[in-house]
Amino acid sequence: MSQIQLSSMASVIASIEPIDPRHTAEARLRLDSLTKPIGSLGQLEDIATQMFSIFSGSVPFPLRRAVYVFAADHGVTAEGVSAYPREVTAQMVHNFVAGGAAINVLARLHDAQLTVVDVGVDAEFDPAPGLCLMKVRRGSGNMLREPAMTQEDLAAAIETGIRLAQSAKQQGQTLVAVGEMGIGNTTSASAIAAVLTKQPIGEVTGRGTGLDPAGRDRKLNILRESLERHFGDSTGTLEPLEILRCVGGLEIAAMTGFILCAAANRMAVICDGFISTAAAAIAHGLAPEVSGYLFAGHCSEEPGHRHLLRYIGLTPILQLGMRLGEGTGAVLAMPVIESSVRLFTEMATFSSARVSTANE
Amino acid sequence: MSQIQLSSMASVIASIEPIDPRHTAEARLRLDSLTKPIGSLGQLEDIATQMFSIFSGSVPFPLRRAVYVFAADHGVTAEGVSAYPREVTAQMVHNFVAGGAAINVLARLHDAQLTVVDVGVDAEFDPAPGLCLMKVRRGSGNMLREPAMTQEDLAAAIETGIRLAQSAKQQGQTLVAVGEMGIGNTTSASAIAAVLTKQPIGEVTGRGTGLDPAGRDRKLNILRESLERHFGDSTGTLEPLEILRCVGGLEIAAMTGFILCAAANRMAVICDGFISTAAAAIAHGLAPEVSGYLFAGHCSEEPGHRHLLRYIGLTPILQLGMRLGEGTGAVLAMPVIESSVRLFTEMATFSSARVSTANE
Repeated sequence: MSQIQLSSMASVIASIEPIDPRHTAEARLRLDSLTKPIGSLGQLEDIATQMFSIFSGSVPFPLRRAVYVFAADHGVTAEGVSAYPREVTAQMVHNFVAGGAAINVLARLHDAQLTVVDVGVDAEFDPAPGLCLMKVRRGSGNMLREPAMTQEDLAAAIETGIRLAQSAKQQGQTLVAVGEMGIGNTTSASAIAAVLTKQPIGEVTGRGTGLDPAGRDRKLNILRESLERHFGDSTGTLEPLEILRCVGGLEIAAMTGFILCAAANRMAVICDGFISTAAAAIAHGLAPEVSGYLFAGHCSEEPGHRHLLRYIGLTPILQLGMRLGEGTGAVLAMPVIESSVRLFTEMATFSSARVSTANE
Repeated sequence: MSQIQLSSMASVIASIEPIDPRHTAEARLRLDSLTKPIGSLGQLEDIATQMFSIFSGSVPFPLRRAVYVFAADHGVTAEGVSAYPREVTAQMVHNFVAGGAAINVLARLHDAQLTVVDVGVDAEFDPAPGLCLMKVRRGSGNMLREPAMTQEDLAAAIETGIRLAQSAKQQGQTLVAVGEMGIGNTTSASAIAAVLTKQPIGEVTGRGTGLDPAGRDRKLNILRESLERHFGDSTGTLEPLEILRCVGGLEIAAMTGFILCAAANRMAVICDGFISTAAAAIAHGLAPEVSGYLFAGHCSEEPGHRHLLRYIGLTPILQLGMRLGEGTGAVLAMPVIESSVRLFTEMATFSSARVSTANE
């Protein structure tokens, strides 16, 4: 099974086309003709340029917005790495289904279709609208004792993400956000960040949902031991998939598959905080051209996030000190992205509006 | 006339009520009961708290959004302080009326009612929907040679802003942005920022709409001479109104009146970039409690902006490297403000959603 499924990922990766620099140049020319001082829309101009390039010169209106929240549990929670008990993952899935979580509020307000994906929660759910039951297994392995996933689980989780991105494409979605829910998953993201960006683990490990200093020290020790166990003997650069398998998680693997397949289908993809960006970083490690399709919704308070953003080469859109996950920072960036594209499309030019250009 | 009108401003100032700290405390309690780690919504929590306090514990839904763009010309443009010719102010007013400017696009997308106010443009306009013809005079005086405004002009411009805020209140607007258009007005804003924040003029003077280094040096020299002419003999702290009169502008005075009166009427006011924040800083100098009603939509690329924000005590919502004015950064922050209030109002609590709270 894993062979077949990883070949599906390989064909997805092979079909990702790099952004065409001619579209980028064309977009810059148009931006400079609009009735505003050159460059005065700042980062909005970069966003508009990227959107123009992703959609090969013709951004489809209206943008169809969606957010996918991947949920899974983590074996490493047995080591006491989170301020919240493991049961909260399942409880929050119920909260998503009931419409009471932060991402529900933001998805409603900003008109993003919300899909919650159980890719590995340690609980069973009844079918519900907007909930995809695609569990690979009830939680990943404890990275301190064993790899988080087997080869088969890894392939199945990636495949889950690929199938959801294919479904997004079929539904005509063009601006998709990825978010997650999983108690313990900042521990996985820190491990991934440390190995990928070659930062000391202390640089990329934060307080997660709210550990006290002693709790963070414990988390740091677990991380040090886990990294030693899995990668202590290795020299040189590790394979992204092997990092993901050993210290990642089912939701992170699913997001990796989703991001790769969304890029292959020329969708604009917004990653959210530390954990979804860890998935994006793995995807970027597997296929560097994926970054042309990626936006960073915001910069999280988790200290490892900015290292991952730098690794991929992304500039965050918002910087609001958020650290919630669920896709909240990604959905909050949607109005900014939409604004940039509308400005690009709808503003008058200096000549059409008969406005004088700068002196000299 | 000026006496009567400044007495109108004095009564507006007298009616500004400080934000009630009991509402602030109540909002914090509620935020900590919502299904998210404590503090994990970052600055959104501060915004929600401030909105809850502005509206005395009951934010009206839907928020009625509006943006007021005050336009005027500046006598100091005779000294060559801008990259664009003076005529662009009037040309851009025509562009606003035709719907082709950046603020038109953003106001449409984010559902903000746009009002353009001619408070001092050096051109005559035909009546048009959304254009308020309230010209005080055709451009301010050249600050290098004379005060920008007489006492009478200053009072009339402030009164213009007061009347528009009263009209906003009558229309039921609750979330109002202030923006501006006026070739040469970063020169006024730099002069105001230098005197109010006691920074060296070089610290608060930028390239405006796009001066080259030689142009910026010329602007800096004009500013140094102007500040010496008006305030060279003074010792100690200057009166905000006198700063505004000597080196401000008609649109800046109108925004000052607007902000004061909007605060007196308990509206949430979003300032935009460097120039509207200069008006907010004057308003804050006249009535410190106005800051409770103020949001900073974004942080502009103009170097003086952050000094003014610090002077008032505001944290910008967006940081996108914009420097366009027109209210664009303020309107772009509206979805973030609305998001914060919706999260506050609509999220489930830990007890209502039966989600476990943090360990310990």
